[in-house]
Amino acid sequence: MALPDSILRRLEEVVDPDRISTGESNLSLHAKDESFHEPHLPDVVIWPKDTEEVSRIVRICHDANIPVTPWGAGTSLEGNPIPVRGGVVIDLQQMNEILGIREDDLQVDVQAGVVFKDLNKKLARYGLFFPPDPGASATIGGMVANNASGIRAIKYGATKDLIQKLTVVLADGEIIRPGTLAFKTSSGLDLCRLFAGSEGILGIITEITLRLVGIPPEFLSATVSFPDAESATQTISQIIRSGLSPAALEFLGINCVRLVNKYTEEFDFPESPLVFIEFHGTNKEGLAIDLDLVRGLCEDNGATHFQAGIGRQARAKLWQARYDLHDFILREHPGLEPMAIDTAVPISKLPALVTYAERIALESDIIGYVFGHAGSGNIHMPMMGNPRDKTSWDVLEDINHRLVEYAISLGGTATGEHGVGIGKMQFMEMEHGTSLKIMRQIKHLFDPKGILNPGKMF
Amino acid sequence: MALPDSILRRLEEVVDPDRISTGESNLSLHAKDESFHEPHLPDVVIWPKDTEEVSRIVRICHDANIPVTPWGAGTSLEGNPIPVRGGVVIDLQQMNEILGIREDDLQVDVQAGVVFKDLNKKLARYGLFFPPDPGASATIGGMVANNASGIRAIKYGATKDLIQKLTVVLADGEIIRPGTLAFKTSSGLDLCRLFAGSEGILGIITEITLRLVGIPPEFLSATVSFPDAESATQTISQIIRSGLSPAALEFLGINCVRLVNKYTEEFDFPESPLVFIEFHGTNKEGLAIDLDLVRGLCEDNGATHFQAGIGRQARAKLWQARYDLHDFILREHPGLEPMAIDTAVPISKLPALVTYAERIALESDIIGYVFGHAGSGNIHMPMMGNPRDKTSWDVLEDINHRLVEYAISLGGTATGEHGVGIGKMQFMEMEHGTSLKIMRQIKHLFDPKGILNPGKMF
Repeated sequence: MALPDSILRRLEEVVDPDRISTGESNLSLHAKDESFHEPHLPDVVIWPKDTEEVSRIVRICHDANIPVTPWGAGTSLEGNPIPVRGGVVIDLQQMNEILGIREDDLQVDVQAGVVFKDLNKKLARYGLFFPPDPGASATIGGMVANNASGIRAIKYGATKDLIQKLTVVLADGEIIRPGTLAFKTSSGLDLCRLFAGSEGILGIITEITLRLVGIPPEFLSATVSFPDAESATQTISQIIRSGLSPAALEFLGINCVRLVNKYTEEFDFPESPLVFIEFHGTNKEGLAIDLDLVRGLCEDNGATHFQAGIGRQARAKLWQARYDLHDFILREHPGLEPMAIDTAVPISKLPALVTYAERIALESDIIGYVFGHAGSGNIHMPMMGNPRDKTSWDVLEDINHRLVEYAISLGGTATGEHGVGIGKMQFMEMEHGTSLKIMRQIKHLFDPKGILNPGKMF
Repeated sequence: MALPDSILRRLEEVVDPDRISTGESNLSLHAKDESFHEPHLPDVVIWPKDTEEVSRIVRICHDANIPVTPWGAGTSLEGNPIPVRGGVVIDLQQMNEILGIREDDLQVDVQAGVVFKDLNKKLARYGLFFPPDPGASATIGGMVANNASGIRAIKYGATKDLIQKLTVVLADGEIIRPGTLAFKTSSGLDLCRLFAGSEGILGIITEITLRLVGIPPEFLSATVSFPDAESATQTISQIIRSGLSPAALEFLGINCVRLVNKYTEEFDFPESPLVFIEFHGTNKEGLAIDLDLVRGLCEDNGATHFQAGIGRQARAKLWQARYDLHDFILREHPGLEPMAIDTAVPISKLPALVTYAERIALESDIIGYVFGHAGSGNIHMPMMGNPRDKTSWDVLEDINHRLVEYAISLGGTATGEHGVGIGKMQFMEMEHGTSLKIMRQIKHLFDPKGILNPGKMF
């Protein structure tokens, strides 16, 4: 259904027409995220400037029963912001103001469209940073809506754990501001954690107060090669259980290591599974002792290569290579698209999950790139294919299904950090059982007309 | 209204009559928590053995519109479990089984009635512990329902932050099991954080899977005296902002120090505001450097006395004295009852809050014992009085009101860790504004008949 002209005129009354577009290229840019999921064009894209404008837009859509889908940077991987029922896309990227840095409180107030990399650049001047780092150039609003996390969640938590306060526009346009600026509260129901990870289906997050962390004065990094995935992941599991507190603990399967060697000039790792470890702290002396403990654990598990003492520059390149892995995979398979896997399991089950993933990839004769935030039990395995070649794509779908099913059977989750979007909807019943009914009721309570990011999550 | 006999007979069909009591002493024991709030007798107390029994009890009450109030250890401080509308109290203390310790996953499954001190005794054998520690002998179920925290939240988070999975009996008796055993998830709506801190008004939590932490092999503690509350709290605020990661950072005002000196044999602190600091880590070398940084900050702020190198035994006694403070205050004022204050503010506002609290206590000529988990911005100030002497009690009520109002005006919260119960209901509108309407709607969604812990929170 096309958007009636009368509605468009009403929208133009509340937002500067310069910031409303029905042009084909703008609609196309908001039809698809970075996943393989089928694009859907919205009817109109609007770039509001502030919460009040978002509220006015939503009020009009609410009156007219028009779908509203919030849009961050479009970097999600499960089709989370694809406007599958058309309607209005609210692109929050012009709401990119840092509203206030309260360094004494370790807090920052931002509009939802601020990109976390820009935020961290600005915060560095104050010796502060916002730890979650999904790799891609995501907006803070998108990170909150998906509860994004990434490499440092193991020490500092996911986005959800660092939200102090939100401004949210509800389905009828009402504005609420749940949360507190105190570090601790037992006051009332925790609406902030309910909106975090709700992917725009309960309300549109327009402003966020985040808790920050002081940039640690000292880092220690190491790369460790292992004879096989099992010994690598066993070691990771043991490090977590040892009481050490790594700031990152990443696993790269052998296929990933090959790509890093191929596409970077700096690195030539042994062709075997690799673990990146990083510690953050206030002094080198303490960190060095922690790293020695880790070295002992690695050697006990048969590590073949342990390189510590990585300098600041080499460390930056190492993390860049880790982030670029997604691009390396795409470059290696031109014309194909990735089906992402994003399961997480209890840490003792990590070796079983990785071994299973590698085995079914081998059995099915497909190339899977196993890697992930292994210290949090979170494993990805993008598999490349052509979504339009139904037979071969079905093989990937089948592997995805078996892996998620296996992760859930181990007590794990269908998505560790990408969110549900379209891709993981099929697993919600399997994972949540009778809780799913309650989630649906909450959705209905917040959005009885079903206009907010419809067709997602459930 | 008395409970109809027919209902009692139905209850006796689903629970062994040995575990149902209408005896006066049992009713009395469940009429009051540790607060001054007016006792209310329930009509019957039931001690279920498992989740299924809780479900059957709730189903009967739901059919008959009878209030149901869950009961942990009764150690709460805001009247949270007082059955103000009578009906059934479900005492969960016989559901005190540790169902499984999965040390490799740093997780434990418990029934709601397990006392956290007993749990930590058991876990110590595995080198693990559950960090939140409210001081009193609370049950895990009560801690989840109130989002309890205590001295170590500053490093390890509040109870809410360590919940993996719950079993909850809903208002109609249905059982749901939200959550995951994976450390990370972005799957669906976060029901665990919604039930945490909901004080029994959304459902009855019967089983909990907690995330645990390895007992740190090394501790370093210090006590520091300051010339006044302002320099002490300024220092605390600076320590938090410095990037150091203390495991405890407690403030004791001068009145509290006097009581510790009076009621313990071991301690004779200078009669001035005192700060306890503790660091946890894997090696003494790193901790010693951190403590040196702290010493420098303390000296810069005029600390008059810095004692580090406290041994394991002295440390245990120090924390015991800190925990016993509540009892010391009661002993100092026989016959009187405490009005607790439990506000929390952003860390930069801590000095202002403490100074304000001490000033209005002085101006009103009452004795307030200012202390708290200052590193989290959480301050208590029990004031002793006689709730039956309306005139003098009104003075305390007025101070309570002014302090909470001030904390909220600083961006803080009405309750840092005690929960809302009866005592903090009056501040919900002031703190939450339009969000309160949403909280009420969620309550109505979960409990349309209003039978679950009625008369609380809103």
